[in-house]
Amino acid sequence: MDETITLSLDALETLSLELLIRHGFDEAHAAAITRSVVAAQRDECHSHGVYRLIGCVETLRRGGVSPDATPEVTEASSGVVRVDAGRGCSLLAFEHARPVLIDKARTHGVALLALNNAFHFSALWPEVESLAEEGLVALAMTPSHAFVAPAGGQQPLLGTNPIAFSWPRPGKAPFTFDFATSRVARGEIELCRRSGTAIPDDWAVDPDGRATTDPARALQGAMLTFGGHKGSALSIMVELLAGPLIGDLLGHETRPADDDGAGRPWHGELIVAIDPRRLLGDDMERQLQHAEALFEGVLAQGARLPSQRRHEARRRSREHGVTISASLYRELTRLREAAEG
Amino acid sequence: MDETITLSLDALETLSLELLIRHGFDEAHAAAITRSVVAAQRDECHSHGVYRLIGCVETLRRGGVSPDATPEVTEASSGVVRVDAGRGCSLLAFEHARPVLIDKARTHGVALLALNNAFHFSALWPEVESLAEEGLVALAMTPSHAFVAPAGGQQPLLGTNPIAFSWPRPGKAPFTFDFATSRVARGEIELCRRSGTAIPDDWAVDPDGRATTDPARALQGAMLTFGGHKGSALSIMVELLAGPLIGDLLGHETRPADDDGAGRPWHGELIVAIDPRRLLGDDMERQLQHAEALFEGVLAQGARLPSQRRHEARRRSREHGVTISASLYRELTRLREAAEG
Repeated sequence: MDETITLSLDALETLSLELLIRHGFDEAHAAAITRSVVAAQRDECHSHGVYRLIGCVETLRRGGVSPDATPEVTEASSGVVRVDAGRGCSLLAFEHARPVLIDKARTHGVALLALNNAFHFSALWPEVESLAEEGLVALAMTPSHAFVAPAGGQQPLLGTNPIAFSWPRPGKAPFTFDFATSRVARGEIELCRRSGTAIPDDWAVDPDGRATTDPARALQGAMLTFGGHKGSALSIMVELLAGPLIGDLLGHETRPADDDGAGRPWHGELIVAIDPRRLLGDDMERQLQHAEALFEGVLAQGARLPSQRRHEARRRSREHGVTISASLYRELTRLREAAEG
Repeated sequence: MDETITLSLDALETLSLELLIRHGFDEAHAAAITRSVVAAQRDECHSHGVYRLIGCVETLRRGGVSPDATPEVTEASSGVVRVDAGRGCSLLAFEHARPVLIDKARTHGVALLALNNAFHFSALWPEVESLAEEGLVALAMTPSHAFVAPAGGQQPLLGTNPIAFSWPRPGKAPFTFDFATSRVARGEIELCRRSGTAIPDDWAVDPDGRATTDPARALQGAMLTFGGHKGSALSIMVELLAGPLIGDLLGHETRPADDDGAGRPWHGELIVAIDPRRLLGDDMERQLQHAEALFEGVLAQGARLPSQRRHEARRRSREHGVTISASLYRELTRLREAAEG
């Protein structure tokens, strides 16, 4: 067993901020990135937690992110706000455009946020959940780099193309899900590679199109979509909506900054926000309560809600701090000090 | 092998119209229902084809549809149009509200159609495809009756909760998908029951929560979601968006009219329409062309596009007519004549 270390949320936040700023991110970027990775670590979403800081610094070193770009927010139409991240991080661009998106949704009932030209590495649930905390219903998607084969194919073409959704619950944390349309998130396979663990043989194919349990070969080959042709269809939808619809790239036109393949490391993201009050008026409170019957029906069967485990972890972390592996902690502190050399 | 009979599209349309009108549907309802079931039969989507006419008449006989309701269209907000089907068929309500939805999407960039209080039996793809033919991007969903267990559960709670999406393609039929968030559409299991065919054992559980290959036992038990917890999460999203968000029922609060269980046979549907021109302006044509690279990438691997088989069938049917089983044809003509007795 790897040793672990437990840190307070404040200590983890300070480590993240210092690490990012020392490596050249401006304070606004460092704060936005820190909010996302610390929230993921707090909720025990390890694949989008603080280990991603290593990737952020590597991406910066390779010119894959502008560490001090100021996002530009513009209005495309009464129901659409755009934000150009200027090759900076998607998280900061989202924070800049978020108030306009909320305002448009409250005015028209529904609004879109088209986020362009961004370095994107984070989970989507913190974004949709932050909109649900304002009483909105939110749906987000982004096409990542081409790691996934379409159903019936064996070559990488589609991104892992996550979809996230959040729904406001009176007096409770929002109902939220966030999943890759690949069988698993690429981060899961990367964590297996880091820990030397075999993967199930239905997650991916190797570069020759054959099933593999070797995470390194899987990362070189093509991941598979979840749910066969249905997951593949949803993945294509994500590419279209968060790509050409917003004037941005398809997954196969992008690449991670630490890969020497063709393509740019920046791409788009689409968020849909809906204000239930504009649909329901005075009936809104009653209908939000009505929705609780569905959640109760799931729990009554002994099944779990998608966000349940994460919200339980959040309560634990707030009380007892966050536990990460000692080797990851050493790597992060070394990385923080290395910037001073 | 069952005998078959081949009919022209016109002949099939006439049979459907006569059958529906003789049984009491008004001309507007008969025309809207006929357009949907004949389009499905034309595209060889047998599970939503003309065999559904039998169910429409049975639903009418049991008071599950108002055959002459006039849909009422109202504006909920600048981005939201509502239509109350008045317990009539969803297809007619959609046709009434469609021009307002299109107008709102073109004005604001994005708009919602909240369709309430409708008898719903049809495929969703004809609706989203008709919006894509107007140059819009469209997403539709509806919660059907509670036939499906959430991931981790064994009791019916969720509807089969289909999601449909359509994207306009220059000079080609739109890219369209339409699938149940259950493993298969309930109609597929019903067709197996009608033909006495066993089903795979991962489609459903029997009333005792055990895997079954008997379609009749499956229909009495609980269907399973596609793609495990991810499909289950999407199914819950459909219930929320096309239920409480639009002030309508959850799947478990509804029932088919031919079932003696508790609940009403009418429920809601949500459609999102997006006008790419309001996001892209003069760049729209180039970006629609850009999207074609993704479709070409799928086809280049020997994989299929979701709507490909259906659009091929459409070409065949237009040229050679539509082939249905002789027993179904006899049942439909008998049903048409029976109304005169």
